[in-house]
Amino acid sequence: MKLWEDKVRRTVPYTPGEQPQGTNLIKLNTNENPYPPAPGVEAVKNTMDTGRLRLYPDPSAGVLVDALAEYYHVGKDQVFVGVGSDDVLSVAFLTFFNSQKPVLFPDITYSFYPVWADIYRIPYETRPLDEDFRIRPQDYYGDNGGIVFPNPNAPTACYESLETVEEILKHNRDVVVIVDEAYIDFAGDGKSALKLLDKYDNLLVVQTFSKSRSMAGLRIGYAMGCPELIRAMNDVKYSINSYTMNLPSLLMGAEAVKDKAYFETCVAKIKATREKTKERLAALGFEFPDSQANFIFAKHPDYEGKELFEALRRQSIFVRYFDKPRIDQYLRITVGTDEQMDVLMKFFEEYMA
Amino acid sequence: MKLWEDKVRRTVPYTPGEQPQGTNLIKLNTNENPYPPAPGVEAVKNTMDTGRLRLYPDPSAGVLVDALAEYYHVGKDQVFVGVGSDDVLSVAFLTFFNSQKPVLFPDITYSFYPVWADIYRIPYETRPLDEDFRIRPQDYYGDNGGIVFPNPNAPTACYESLETVEEILKHNRDVVVIVDEAYIDFAGDGKSALKLLDKYDNLLVVQTFSKSRSMAGLRIGYAMGCPELIRAMNDVKYSINSYTMNLPSLLMGAEAVKDKAYFETCVAKIKATREKTKERLAALGFEFPDSQANFIFAKHPDYEGKELFEALRRQSIFVRYFDKPRIDQYLRITVGTDEQMDVLMKFFEEYMA
Repeated sequence: MKLWEDKVRRTVPYTPGEQPQGTNLIKLNTNENPYPPAPGVEAVKNTMDTGRLRLYPDPSAGVLVDALAEYYHVGKDQVFVGVGSDDVLSVAFLTFFNSQKPVLFPDITYSFYPVWADIYRIPYETRPLDEDFRIRPQDYYGDNGGIVFPNPNAPTACYESLETVEEILKHNRDVVVIVDEAYIDFAGDGKSALKLLDKYDNLLVVQTFSKSRSMAGLRIGYAMGCPELIRAMNDVKYSINSYTMNLPSLLMGAEAVKDKAYFETCVAKIKATREKTKERLAALGFEFPDSQANFIFAKHPDYEGKELFEALRRQSIFVRYFDKPRIDQYLRITVGTDEQMDVLMKFFEEYMA
Repeated sequence: MKLWEDKVRRTVPYTPGEQPQGTNLIKLNTNENPYPPAPGVEAVKNTMDTGRLRLYPDPSAGVLVDALAEYYHVGKDQVFVGVGSDDVLSVAFLTFFNSQKPVLFPDITYSFYPVWADIYRIPYETRPLDEDFRIRPQDYYGDNGGIVFPNPNAPTACYESLETVEEILKHNRDVVVIVDEAYIDFAGDGKSALKLLDKYDNLLVVQTFSKSRSMAGLRIGYAMGCPELIRAMNDVKYSINSYTMNLPSLLMGAEAVKDKAYFETCVAKIKATREKTKERLAALGFEFPDSQANFIFAKHPDYEGKELFEALRRQSIFVRYFDKPRIDQYLRITVGTDEQMDVLMKFFEEYMA
């Protein structure tokens, strides 16, 4: 016991999915994109002048904010960027959840939410998803300090309609409602809550480059909301770290946004692979809520989730397993390439033969 | 007034030095390095596979931590890395300053300290520097919740001896003492408090790639301390953002550390320019505490600080001016290249002729 230890902030950190090293492994455990970033990213990298690294980057991240504002047809003062959507969500928790009332989120959801609440001493309560893993909007109508949920949800991959989202927004005009849309691009066009931005000044939509844009390694997330919400987040950001986005992130990130055609092609390929995988999993007897994300949350009535997880692991096929109440029979399987899914399905077919 | 506004965290953000755009300007306002990063950085950039960006980076930042541990001859479990030293210091404040007692730092110092204290609701008290802008160690001997000071101090550029640092450590074994060494490499060999690491488990030394390593644009800072201190910081980091260091930072940062010869050459050039600049400033009647950093904190008995700052600005020469008690007559002038300092000094010579 060190003398200073009683002044240390106690916390139970989030556990990220493992990052196994080596070749010949199939990595379907952290919902990464199997395809490389847009080709323009390589070109921007090649022309990036490393001499410029001696200077601080633009603290307002102008080039990246501008690219996102143009892409999503929102004002530049409606975009906040951060070091992955985890950074963005963390800043949003710290900025907006300062009442003494509990923040609400589903019982089965992104497991970082309770961690941020704990580290920032924010009270919270969970609301159980129904038996089909769906959100019951009326659970979120009571007095509360704010609301956050992913759509599609993780790890269930369930998408809630914009009607459900709007009901929650409508009943909570006096608190900030964060819709965490890390996987929204896999749900299809017109599914994002961005549509509701003009109508609700209490809506913050959070998205990321880590999934549909193939850039988990660059660490870029962003939030969109009314200018007052974004200004409040920037005030907090400038109270923690003025320069969060480094030069490579700014330049390569901005470029990635510009190539809409490549982005749409990759997303379409992943969705096609997902639909084929759903059919094959169902044919084998797997059960899963309908996935609108780049992963499938599946269980098998005849096999323990943990057993399957470990059997796959022995074959260097990595999926995600959560040893938690209600979901300890499930595997969260990232949708990779057709070839990767073939290997996975072949394994299941042999294992269950 | 939005309905949700009463739940927003109020804060007065840190104001970073301006980032003027354009060519033909002389930028001596944010203590950047006038020389580019080590040549190996360009080579690493060129071989970096952008295809790897689709994957999450190593959350433990292994390649960068290993390079730093080897360079500084400390254990890998003694190194923490973050998105610039601002990120590292912010995590350290949140991790270590959790008593209800005030944290202590000098009245004239890095102006981010009170901002972090405010955002994290940490009580603090300042201790005045003496008339020569020096720390009086006995000011830090009372009961407190932790201590932080830069060495060399900013914006004064004064270096405090390791005897002074050790006195403060010795009298505060029950709290964490953070020595913020952003500018230490310009003070000379053997001046870092790293020497005291083995002796004091309450010492955290923070350094950065933004100054002596010419990489402000890559956002890399690091802290070194006993393994228990580093573990506590990592627990907090993993409670905020699992993956803070992106792939370019990991690869280029690790490479920069390896080229000791280039690093030492650049630092020596800046120190030589600093010494020449001191002589020329003194000859013109400027007064300044002796600088052991890559900037000089100077005032002139016959000219208002603000007047000089604005006159320089009209010539596109940017220095830093702080409109604050005790230091509102001073300019903080970054040491650039010999050529840049020639332009600056020629301006002063003509202005004061």
